[in-house]
Amino acid sequence: MEYHDKLGLSRERFVDLAEQFHDDSYRGRAYRRLPDYRRSVEKGTVLVGGTVVRGFPKIPRCLVLDEGIPQQFDREIAVEEKLNGYNVRVARIEGDILAFTRSGIVCPFTTHKVQALVDCDRFFDRHPDRMLCGEMIGPENPYTTADCYDVDSIAFRAFDIRDRESGDSMPVAERREACEDLGISQVDLFGVYEPTEAVESTPEIVDGLDERGREGIVMKTVDGSQQLKYTTSAANQGDLAYAFTYPFDYGRAFAFRRLIREGFQSVEFADSEAERRERAHGVGESLLLPMIDSIEAVGEGDRLGERHTVRAEPRVVDALLDHFREQSLSIDIERDRRVEGQRVLTFSKQIQRSTDKIDSYLDGTIVKE
Amino acid sequence: MEYHDKLGLSRERFVDLAEQFHDDSYRGRAYRRLPDYRRSVEKGTVLVGGTVVRGFPKIPRCLVLDEGIPQQFDREIAVEEKLNGYNVRVARIEGDILAFTRSGIVCPFTTHKVQALVDCDRFFDRHPDRMLCGEMIGPENPYTTADCYDVDSIAFRAFDIRDRESGDSMPVAERREACEDLGISQVDLFGVYEPTEAVESTPEIVDGLDERGREGIVMKTVDGSQQLKYTTSAANQGDLAYAFTYPFDYGRAFAFRRLIREGFQSVEFADSEAERRERAHGVGESLLLPMIDSIEAVGEGDRLGERHTVRAEPRVVDALLDHFREQSLSIDIERDRRVEGQRVLTFSKQIQRSTDKIDSYLDGTIVKE
Repeated sequence: MEYHDKLGLSRERFVDLAEQFHDDSYRGRAYRRLPDYRRSVEKGTVLVGGTVVRGFPKIPRCLVLDEGIPQQFDREIAVEEKLNGYNVRVARIEGDILAFTRSGIVCPFTTHKVQALVDCDRFFDRHPDRMLCGEMIGPENPYTTADCYDVDSIAFRAFDIRDRESGDSMPVAERREACEDLGISQVDLFGVYEPTEAVESTPEIVDGLDERGREGIVMKTVDGSQQLKYTTSAANQGDLAYAFTYPFDYGRAFAFRRLIREGFQSVEFADSEAERRERAHGVGESLLLPMIDSIEAVGEGDRLGERHTVRAEPRVVDALLDHFREQSLSIDIERDRRVEGQRVLTFSKQIQRSTDKIDSYLDGTIVKE
Repeated sequence: MEYHDKLGLSRERFVDLAEQFHDDSYRGRAYRRLPDYRRSVEKGTVLVGGTVVRGFPKIPRCLVLDEGIPQQFDREIAVEEKLNGYNVRVARIEGDILAFTRSGIVCPFTTHKVQALVDCDRFFDRHPDRMLCGEMIGPENPYTTADCYDVDSIAFRAFDIRDRESGDSMPVAERREACEDLGISQVDLFGVYEPTEAVESTPEIVDGLDERGREGIVMKTVDGSQQLKYTTSAANQGDLAYAFTYPFDYGRAFAFRRLIREGFQSVEFADSEAERRERAHGVGESLLLPMIDSIEAVGEGDRLGERHTVRAEPRVVDALLDHFREQSLSIDIERDRRVEGQRVLTFSKQIQRSTDKIDSYLDGTIVKE
């Protein structure tokens, strides 16, 4: 079977699509990955060693649970927690475990970590044609900064088991049992509901998550075929604060969408007058205070950067730094220690555009708008 | 002389530009107007009766007064108030007084009002080749809603006298004297300063305006040739509230720019910790509360609209309604009264996109983002 068959495309359509794939390699193994969403094939889809690792689909979102849930679902759904980390797909290709990020890049750090955290060989012995999908969470990772979980360094939480080529999900109950059997940590399951019950139950679940600073929920039909997500106010405001730390690097659309979500949630969750004002103040603080901190930092001569810490065997950290170099990322090393044989590295990814723009406005640059 | 000469363009360049002009007419007089900014010619430039009415230039802005003022100016500048109304240019063409809005449209309402408010004939007898530039302010007008001035219905405030064809400004002192002589109300002048003095004085002027809910300042070289503007926090937050009343009609970029201004102003004006938080809360309330009101209104079956009231002789109000009809604007009449021979009409301009989008999200529409 050829790639186009595995992707379910005609040879002609695949020829067009093939140009959109980027060539990449990991430890001498060449692979091709699709860095953007396309109509027929998910972002992050990888062609490697004659097989396909299908991208993880974008999960649609509703702004109003009350109407969105019955619109999207006509049968039982499982409600699970949506975690704030980074999405990985783990597959075994020609005997090697590889961990792919959302855009289909093999991350050496994650590839190493997931094998330390999950008994991957046992998983793939049982499920050779599947991929294990989950979230890497915790404070010590090279990509995200959320720190609302009871995780010291880094952890893996499974949320899906999919056919590697077709992307079809295992039913929720079967997947949860499979992970349980193999001792693989999973996202929390809040319950299985009829759509009308879910409309009743989800606002409370979301409120509970919000109070703990968590991200939100993913609802899916129990066969795993259809999904829908919804996020907490804490997540919306956290995203705004992140975006306005680097105001000129994150799209206006990014911030706008999150503001809109807060508006609809306030109406649906029937905020009192005081709760509304409190939410508004939270939104304002999320936008303004991080931006002010960044303007002041640049004014004092600092360069903006996104700080991460990773902890791993020295060779794994080396591989990660090599990996960043290959991607032409600019990294500043801030702290580099050894702790019990592990290398603990704190580094910043330089955020160029916001640094430069803020600098130029502070220098009196005139805006023609 | 032909149009291209009057615009200072070669015949060839004018041929290209001519295609961008829109054909329009006012009371049987045909004119052509440039609805957008172009490299060589200002938006709102009008070709009429063999002459040119040059568009009012976009005034550049700085985000930081301290560095922006010395960047833009190397000599004395006049600091005047920037008003929150709508920009008009008044010219006499073949004996008729016409009032042009920013985009070069002859507004029948404004054309009438400006003649009631200003002795235009005396002005143009003295200055036949000039145009009188100013702001229409006050609560009763068909375009803007700011109501922070001590104006009952509508008023005109002059801020420039320009050569109609070249757009060259009269020097500030001469212009103020000319208006004074003719009894034409003008924008306030705060003073004439060397750039270094202006850096000292403008923050206090801006703070004073902010406390009164006013818009901001325009600085210009005393010869009128170079300009720079700066707005208050009240204006920035007022704009945010306006934009988020109709969140899907106003660009994300519109809101983003105003958020950025608040960030830089907070740093430059050395807000205390408490002032920062207060500014942030104001920003959050400006964004969220009007959006929530709009979502609730649409949820209750209302259509969003921008409400205006105008007061004028009945034939003038009729002409305005005809004018809106010609522009294909959808207007809902909300109240229509006669007061002392004047027609007092309250109407809403329908805001289509936000109404429809909010309605669709309330109906459970799924977002793929």
